[in-house]
Order: sequence, then structure tokens, then C-alpha cells
Amino acid sequence: MATGLSQFKAKSSFLTHIRSPPPVKACHRAAVVAMDKNQSYWATIEADIEAYLKKAITIRPPVTVFEPMHHLTFAAPRTKAPALCIAACELMGGDRDQAIAAASAVHLMHAAYYAHEHLPITGRPSHKPKIQHKFEPSIELLTGDGMVPFGLELLSRSMDLAKNNNPDKILRVIIEITRLTGSEGMVDGLYRELQLNGSNIDMGIIEYVCKKKEGELHACGAACGAILGGGAEDEIENLRKYGLYVGMIQGMQNGVGKNNKGMEEKIEKLKILALKELQSLKGKMIEPISSMVEPSLVVV
Amino acid sequence: MATGLSQFKAKSSFLTHIRSPPPVKACHRAAVVAMDKNQSYWATIEADIEAYLKKAITIRPPVTVFEPMHHLTFAAPRTKAPALCIAACELMGGDRDQAIAAASAVHLMHAAYYAHEHLPITGRPSHKPKIQHKFEPSIELLTGDGMVPFGLELLSRSMDLAKNNNPDKILRVIIEITRLTGSEGMVDGLYRELQLNGSNIDMGIIEYVCKKKEGELHACGAACGAILGGGAEDEIENLRKYGLYVGMIQGMQNGVGKNNKGMEEKIEKLKILALKELQSLKGKMIEPISSMVEPSLVVV
Repeated sequence: MATGLSQFKAKSSFLTHIRSPPPVKACHRAAVVAMDKNQSYWATIEADIEAYLKKAITIRPPVTVFEPMHHLTFAAPRTKAPALCIAACELMGGDRDQAIAAASAVHLMHAAYYAHEHLPITGRPSHKPKIQHKFEPSIELLTGDGMVPFGLELLSRSMDLAKNNNPDKILRVIIEITRLTGSEGMVDGLYRELQLNGSNIDMGIIEYVCKKKEGELHACGAACGAILGGGAEDEIENLRKYGLYVGMIQGMQNGVGKNNKGMEEKIEKLKILALKELQSLKGKMIEPISSMVEPSLVVV
Repeated sequence: MATGLSQFKAKSSFLTHIRSPPPVKACHRAAVVAMDKNQSYWATIEADIEAYLKKAITIRPPVTVFEPMHHLTFAAPRTKAPALCIAACELMGGDRDQAIAAASAVHLMHAAYYAHEHLPITGRPSHKPKIQHKFEPSIELLTGDGMVPFGLELLSRSMDLAKNNNPDKILRVIIEITRLTGSEGMVDGLYRELQLNGSNIDMGIIEYVCKKKEGELHACGAACGAILGGGAEDEIENLRKYGLYVGMIQGMQNGVGKNNKGMEEKIEKLKILALKELQSLKGKMIEPISSMVEPSLVVV
């Protein structure tokens, strides 16, 4: 496993930077170094998740099952939710190993829903772009069906990955993920998205969909990481809200909110709300995780 | 909750009946009484599962989500797998409350896959009958997606249903169910079923599909019940195999094996194998659960 949070421990948080800025040139140099470190932190997390998933989903018999599962797992666009899960765990003082299965399960949920969202089926919202399909719809449907329980199985079996994982924590994380993927989470968002079409651009629905899809995906990732890392209840809730805002920003920038008027203003407000949640985490080194919202602030 | 297994405790097992038969008339009377008791036992189980599911899936906001979920949960044809889960738990000395969430989760898995199996989508096997759809395909797809995590969530939250449930047992049952619904379980069977069409009746594939779909569904139900009821490892495996044979018989009688030549002989063999598994359960009252395979034997 890669370096983890320890490389940041010697540095003051970037919010402290903002509050009492050093002279411009030194500040700029420090900020560039911080950005490099942040980028390398996220890169190691992404690499670890990818390695874990590749090991878990080898192309093995039955090949007719695992080949499309492997394909759809890695064909889905990446989100920040799995990385947020690991970062939240490390921020709470946990090890990366404790959260790697949960982070991978979060990606599998997203990838399964992405496959189902893009099946050629009637009753789809008209704004949905068509994507390339490597397999027949019946296969892609089934593969998505298999990915959700597969992710939960990885998680259920993750007791032996880290000494600090216990069945109570894992059950709690399973509940988080089943709620996310269930009828009051992403499925609710996807239902509402069906109401959108070319002539009906309802900003309320767009915002709701961003909250339920990307928002809750990232909220769940962050909360799961915080639970596994041993966070206190208020810390778990701070990180859940941070994840929610991070995800909503994603939905507004790249999801259903993309190219809609008035999003920039909403995004700026969400960034402020997100950073406030981190500021509530007393005595924690919030820098690498905070860079997910606003790396540009560091360069100011 | 209904009566449970206790009503059978005063009676000798039906296998004992077969070995040392009383005079014909008395035997016939006893057999009829036993059949009535068996039927009433299964009826109370079915009623309890139905009541639990109705309470869990009320039509509540968001109605657009819960109305189709309620509909598809109860529109799916019933299988014996949830009842087997309860019966196995009670056979191992557990309470019905301990297994009711797991039994309901098993039904939800089946109902979700049934909804997905019948979506109007290309690449389907030609033998698949068309069914009535109350909702648009996009809604039925999403609803099935929501039902799988919903079932697992019910189960994860079932700690407080019975004093003897603990997180280790529940995690183990979650692993059983995720394996069942995952890529090496029902999804594998459904993939293989895609290879069947009007001109290709491959008996090997038919048998494999019966094993992977109905077989593993019932095996999982029985194993989950045995785990929750506190069965020993060998008892859990006996009941898992019993469930496997019960399910394969279902698949051959009512599933993909229906109306295919040579099934009757296979079914008879499976019944014998199934009853052998029950006979291995030393000191257990196997009558109500054994009637799932062969009620007619009692009347001989």
C-alpha cells in the first residue's frame, strides 16, 4: 500500500495558510509543493483501489460472467467517491487497508448503476448520451446485477484485511451502502432523472438528482471511510456532509447539471459549505482531503 | 408470529413411519393428519413472511419508488426458498423471528431477478414467456436494482429482531446471499440460460440452469436459516444440500426444465438425495421440512 496520510502530518493545514498568509513568493512555492503532494496522495489512492479491484475481478471461470464484469467495472468513468472513502478513513487515523474493500464496493455500485443507466431501453430521459456497448444488453443487465452483490461480498469478507475491522463496523458500512444504492438513495435520483427531457429543464429536479446520485454516492464513501477509520459520530456526520457537497458539485459540473445556467453560483456556495464541515473537525490534518473541493484556493 | 415447529414435537418422524408401518387404516388417518399439519405449518410461515414484507414495503414517499417496488415484490411468483429458510432455522432450534428478515431478503432477491429477467430487452432466450408489465421498462429495471440492496438492508438491520442474532451470524448470512445473487450464483445460471433457444435444448445446460437458479436460491435459503438457527457446520451443509435438491426439483418441474423429456427420472433421484440429507440430521424432527420434497410418501 502507498504512503498514506503521514506525509502531510508535518505541515500546517491549508486553511491556516489562508488565515495567516506568508509573503507571496514563499506562499506560492509552498502552495505548489502542497498541490504536488495532494496530487500524489490521490494518485496513490486511485492506484491502490485499481490494484485491489483488478485482483478481486480477474477474468476467471465462468469467463462469460467475469469478462463483462471486468470490462464494466473498469469502463465506468471514475468518481471521487472511493478515494474519499480511503481519505476519510486515514483522516480519522485508520489504515488504508481498513477501507480498501469499502472503497472498491462504492466504485462497483457506481459502475453497476452506470451500466444499467445506459442500457438501450424505452422510457429513458432524452438528455442521456448514448455510449458504446461491448456486450449485448441482456449481458450488461445481468452483469450490473452481479456487481452489486459482488461489491457487498468483498466488503463482508474484508474482516481479515485489517486488524481494526470488526463485524459491527462492517455491518454498519453495509447498511450505508445498501441505503445508498436502495430506493431512497441513488435509485430515487435515477427515477427523478427519468422526468427530465429536452423541453423540461426543471432546476429543482436537476438539483435533487445531483444530490441523490453523485451527492449521496460521495456522502456514503466519506461516511464509510470515517466509520471504518474509527471516527466519532459527529466526525462521521461532518465527513458525510463534506462528501455530499463534493458529490453535488460533481453532478453540477459533469452530471445532469452540466451546461445549465446558474450552476456556477450554486457550486461556489457548496464549496464553502463543504470546507465548513472540514473546519469542524478539530485537531485533524484536513489538507489532502480538502483539496478535493478547491485546490485552486491553495494557490491564491 | 405463528405456531412454529412445536406442534410437531410430539410426533415421530415420517421416515420412522415408513420403516415400521402401522395397520393400513390407522396409518392412512395418521398420514392425513400429518399432511394437514404440514400444510398449516407452511401456511403460517408464508403468512408471516408476507406480513413482514408488507410492513417493510409500505407504499410511502417517494411513491414513484415504493409503488413499483411493492408491486414487483408481490407480483413475482412465490418460491419455497423463503419458507425453507424459516423451517431450517426452526429445525435447528431457532425462533422464527431470527430468520424472518433473511427469508424476506431471499424473496426480494428472487423478485428482483424475476423483474430483470422479464424486461423487454434484446438477446433474450426465445423460450422465455412474455409477462404483463405494470410499469415502463426503465422503472422496472430501477426497481429491481433497488430491491436487492433493500433486502440486504432489512437483513443488516435485523439485529434487534431476535435476541439470539449477532453481527457475526448476520454477516455470514449476507455473504451467503451476496454469493447467491452474484456472478457465481444466480447470475451465472441466467447467463447460461441465454444460450438456450427453441432449437438448442441442451440437457446439460438445462440441468446447470436449474442448479444455479432455483437450486442455489433454495440452498441459500436453507443454509441461511440453519446458520441463524444455530446449526452446526455439518447440519448447515446438510440443509444447504437439501435446499439445493428441493430447488433443482422446482426448476425441473416449473422452470427451464418444464416439459423436457427425462426430467421425471432425475426428479425422483433428487428426492432420494434430498431425503438422505435430512436423515443425516441426528435427533431432529424432520417431518414438516421433509414434506417439501415428498408429501405423497406419507400417504403410502
